[in-house]
Amino acid sequence: MDERQYSVDGELLPASEATVNVDDRGFRYGDAAFETMRAYGGSVFEWDAHADRLADTCEALGLDHGLSRGDLHSQIGATLEANDLEDAYVRLSITRGVQPGTLTPRPDVDPTVVVVVKPLPRGGVAGESVWERDARAQTTKTRRIPDNALPAGAKTHNYLNGILAREELYEADEALMRDQDGYVAEGATSNLFFVTESGIHTPTTEGPVLPGITRRVVCELAEEAGVPIHDGRYTVDDVRNADEAFFTNTTWEIRPIRSLDGLTVGGGPVTDLLTRLFDERIEREHY
Amino acid sequence: MDERQYSVDGELLPASEATVNVDDRGFRYGDAAFETMRAYGGSVFEWDAHADRLADTCEALGLDHGLSRGDLHSQIGATLEANDLEDAYVRLSITRGVQPGTLTPRPDVDPTVVVVVKPLPRGGVAGESVWERDARAQTTKTRRIPDNALPAGAKTHNYLNGILAREELYEADEALMRDQDGYVAEGATSNLFFVTESGIHTPTTEGPVLPGITRRVVCELAEEAGVPIHDGRYTVDDVRNADEAFFTNTTWEIRPIRSLDGLTVGGGPVTDLLTRLFDERIEREHY
Repeated sequence: MDERQYSVDGELLPASEATVNVDDRGFRYGDAAFETMRAYGGSVFEWDAHADRLADTCEALGLDHGLSRGDLHSQIGATLEANDLEDAYVRLSITRGVQPGTLTPRPDVDPTVVVVVKPLPRGGVAGESVWERDARAQTTKTRRIPDNALPAGAKTHNYLNGILAREELYEADEALMRDQDGYVAEGATSNLFFVTESGIHTPTTEGPVLPGITRRVVCELAEEAGVPIHDGRYTVDDVRNADEAFFTNTTWEIRPIRSLDGLTVGGGPVTDLLTRLFDERIEREHY
Repeated sequence: MDERQYSVDGELLPASEATVNVDDRGFRYGDAAFETMRAYGGSVFEWDAHADRLADTCEALGLDHGLSRGDLHSQIGATLEANDLEDAYVRLSITRGVQPGTLTPRPDVDPTVVVVVKPLPRGGVAGESVWERDARAQTTKTRRIPDNALPAGAKTHNYLNGILAREELYEADEALMRDQDGYVAEGATSNLFFVTESGIHTPTTEGPVLPGITRRVVCELAEEAGVPIHDGRYTVDDVRNADEAFFTNTTWEIRPIRSLDGLTVGGGPVTDLLTRLFDERIEREHY
């Protein structure tokens, strides 16, 4: 296979030559916003929602990059085209760029924009899942960073919190992280859902929970299907005792949780229904 | 002036060509350890202490870079020499490098090592301070990340917590950050000290407080001088009502706090004494 092409500030480069300067604040401090997206059939799934959240992240960081949404969308399109990709993983990052001086950001920003893509066949109706098996989840000692220290709604290059949680895992592949009060918040890179006889439940974004795009789509699909859906504050035991549980994120889509802390939970009819509805929505919109 | 030379993986490069790949985990996730140091008269101040803390950070991150302390020291020395610098700011970063796949780190690490230097005349007995004026401090809404989310002892490229605190400042130049319980912790890039009639006080590292190298040196100097020194948990009011207060970090050394939240605090005889002792120690060890 030829080397993949990435985009840096709109310039297409072989992946091995796609770099940022070591004085870039994205490298020095993780001072950057990003979105992980999927392209299905050549177009980005839920682009508007991703662009909205990216804008929210930049606002939270006080990062006024001055680039239009259309410009960012074009850079993604050009990168997909250069790689001849229709079904792909897409990562768009905007850093505060190189600035003289110290930690305090300056208002005049010369941002660095990076687009990384890789092939990712869709997990849709006729496709394969990205994940090889259902998730094994483990409750971690590492807690989610509280909102008053780093807003959970901001998707940034400061990802060590999730990395430390993942490093705790033993015979598991996703961390279930709790907030400072002990309520379940989310996975290291995913939102949590579980099913009981009263319906579907997901931790509220009033806690330190990323407002996931797939999370929102799943909530919409549940409502359309007439399945009651609740958000609230839940304990680890609530999840352990659930009938079904699953994680969502952009790349996994809907991924059943086979076990939590070694106790079997698993998918089931509600998870299957949502997976089918999700697949159908992608099929309808992208192919 | 000729362009400065930086070192990347032991290779000396003009600063503008010193880069890391966009797939490097140091860029993607801020998954990197670093130390900020000062060289005085050609040698790094408190190198052993910095090397120890770097090792602690790497252990906290589970980052087994496989490089010897001597190797890292040589890369710093070579960079200083290439720039013909004796008095300098030095920043050493070690990232987990480029790894395939996702957030979970792989144990086999091909680290990226970056040394950045810039001229920094010393603020010693016969020198000038780095800071232009005493600090204006402001208590921020942004709280320090708790230890159970990201260990405060680890010095990493995840620095948005301090950046968000700095962005709150209004007619101030350093953030005074509190922990989740409301006790004062530290500045965005500095440790806090204040002086009362019972001696010198500094927040305990049992809270989310970086064990600063300059903090430790100041504690030693106070002990040697017979000034009582205490660490504990303190409130913002304790600092506001103090006789003197100052910040410490590697580049600032000892920086008096002129005001906190607009209320005058200022330096004084104890701050002056410690500043003189600190200058004399550098003079003795480095010139």
